Amino acid sequence: MSDDQTPTYVEKGKEFQRDTTYVSDRITRDARTPEHGPTDGRMWPVEAGRYRLVAAKACPWANRAIIVRGLLGLEDVVSLGMPGPTHDARSWTFDLDPGGKDPVLGIERLQEAYLARFPDYERGITVPAMVEESSGELVTNDFPWITHDLFHEWRDFHRADAPDLWPAEVREEMEEVMQRVFTEVNNGVYRCGFAGSQEAYDEAYQRLWTALDWLEERLTDRRYLMGSAITEADVRLFTTLARFDAVYHGHFKCNRNKLTEMPALWGYARDLFQTPGFGETIDFDQIKAHYYVVHTDINPSGIVPAGPDPAVWHTPHGRESLG
Amino acid sequence: MSDDQTPTYVEKGKEFQRDTTYVSDRITRDARTPEHGPTDGRMWPVEAGRYRLVAAKACPWANRAIIVRGLLGLEDVVSLGMPGPTHDARSWTFDLDPGGKDPVLGIERLQEAYLARFPDYERGITVPAMVEESSGELVTNDFPWITHDLFHEWRDFHRADAPDLWPAEVREEMEEVMQRVFTEVNNGVYRCGFAGSQEAYDEAYQRLWTALDWLEERLTDRRYLMGSAITEADVRLFTTLARFDAVYHGHFKCNRNKLTEMPALWGYARDLFQTPGFGETIDFDQIKAHYYVVHTDINPSGIVPAGPDPAVWHTPHGRESLG
Repeated sequence: MSDDQTPTYVEKGKEFQRDTTYVSDRITRDARTPEHGPTDGRMWPVEAGRYRLVAAKACPWANRAIIVRGLLGLEDVVSLGMPGPTHDARSWTFDLDPGGKDPVLGIERLQEAYLARFPDYERGITVPAMVEESSGELVTNDFPWITHDLFHEWRDFHRADAPDLWPAEVREEMEEVMQRVFTEVNNGVYRCGFAGSQEAYDEAYQRLWTALDWLEERLTDRRYLMGSAITEADVRLFTTLARFDAVYHGHFKCNRNKLTEMPALWGYARDLFQTPGFGETIDFDQIKAHYYVVHTDINPSGIVPAGPDPAVWHTPHGRESLG
Repeated sequence: MSDDQTPTYVEKGKEFQRDTTYVSDRITRDARTPEHGPTDGRMWPVEAGRYRLVAAKACPWANRAIIVRGLLGLEDVVSLGMPGPTHDARSWTFDLDPGGKDPVLGIERLQEAYLARFPDYERGITVPAMVEESSGELVTNDFPWITHDLFHEWRDFHRADAPDLWPAEVREEMEEVMQRVFTEVNNGVYRCGFAGSQEAYDEAYQRLWTALDWLEERLTDRRYLMGSAITEADVRLFTTLARFDAVYHGHFKCNRNKLTEMPALWGYARDLFQTPGFGETIDFDQIKAHYYVVHTDINPSGIVPAGPDPAVWHTPHGRESLG
């Protein structure tokens, strides 16, 4: 996610506060009102071929949706548009596509889909975003509910052997785990990197590492966060871990340890990376280009580090024996 | 070393070029003309109590002189003034001393000693610097020759069991090793960090890691760079390695590996760190404060990372058995 109003990410003297106000329309089966999540927006019906998921490979929040779409086998039902890794003050562009335009939506900037829906839209232009293909209008950019609904609302279109990413019997605990992972880790790395004072950074760093130590312990005798099967909670943690050594360790100063120095977390991250549907969505070049080029107030030179070597992601993880 | 003319370290589009023009007076036994090194400046006589070494703990080049002075037992012969880790555009200050003044020289800024010698001095105000205590004038800031002369010219004052830091029988090879370590590693990390373009950075990174791979191999079966005894070459490599994970890995983007991931180099660095005269000269807080606060064009926020944990420097290195 990224703000289109200004290229400044660090607010001097302040701690980082993520703007969590999204366009929270839902796409649901028969446009029904769902049991969980926001219901104050419009309800759009699930329909094959109607929506386009716009998701940059660089962005961890968008990466979640790319993974979930693939795990559930929704590639032929929800199309995928992919902005390039870097952007200007007006945010994500389709600069990697032929002619610099998304081939389905025909737009150069994701902003155009936001403005098609709300001509006066002033908040951040973020990915992931679901866009209606026919009208070119933004439907929702409310990322946790996009992946939630791909699972719960699009069941009729899932492939036969799709994983149960939201097992009902652990949902309550899973929501708690995901909430802690979100505030302390997914957003925690940003709180370190965008801290506007030494005090804000120091506090963010402590919170981040307290949570990573908790996860290291939790994953020592569990193969995945909720036990022996992959769930949405793993998808959400994975996209942060995949970026950790490449970006967060140096660029965001999350440098107590590299991920490779946390045995359980590093084994867990590789285990997922080597699972079909995960590793192939990770593009380390795009990830590094995004953070190091876009955040000009953290890295004014725009120079992208050459390290670390991503080959280590393919080494044996030895976690098959865990329950 | 640091430039006092401007707080800009990265020159856009350019590769980093270190200004290696120093005040190259020498302090020699009986003010004789030495066999090696520059002889175009004044010759000052070795004399106990006459000179003050000004050397910030933060600076790797100054750190060399602090280590050599200690290894040779010259503490009572050459006094030591220590500027604090951070400085402004006018460079190093004695802000850690009572009243913000060096207790012997009575000055607030090292610049004053440079101007006492050369009222129109316009080059960088750098440490280490040798200053005559009585006049308060700079004698030399030519760092490789300061440590060279502490060994070769001050022999009458060395402690009885002082190490032979410049063994005559390996001097030729040692000069070659030190030259390669200087251009590729000591200065190589700066070339990465101060690169003004992606191309300059990529080339600097390749050169640095080529040299570190060579050192890793060289140190796999040698306890020290020149064999079984510590020499000046080790002092010069050590002060860069001590700063590697704390600063160069992240701040200067030297991030192929952490030092801790290079088995021979990491064992070697800890071996030296745990040798009397080395580890006690390393102040990780001052080191981090210096780089992250002074280089405002690389780290505009001035926030100093909390990691990594320096406790790992005290772990067993297992290199006693090497020849």
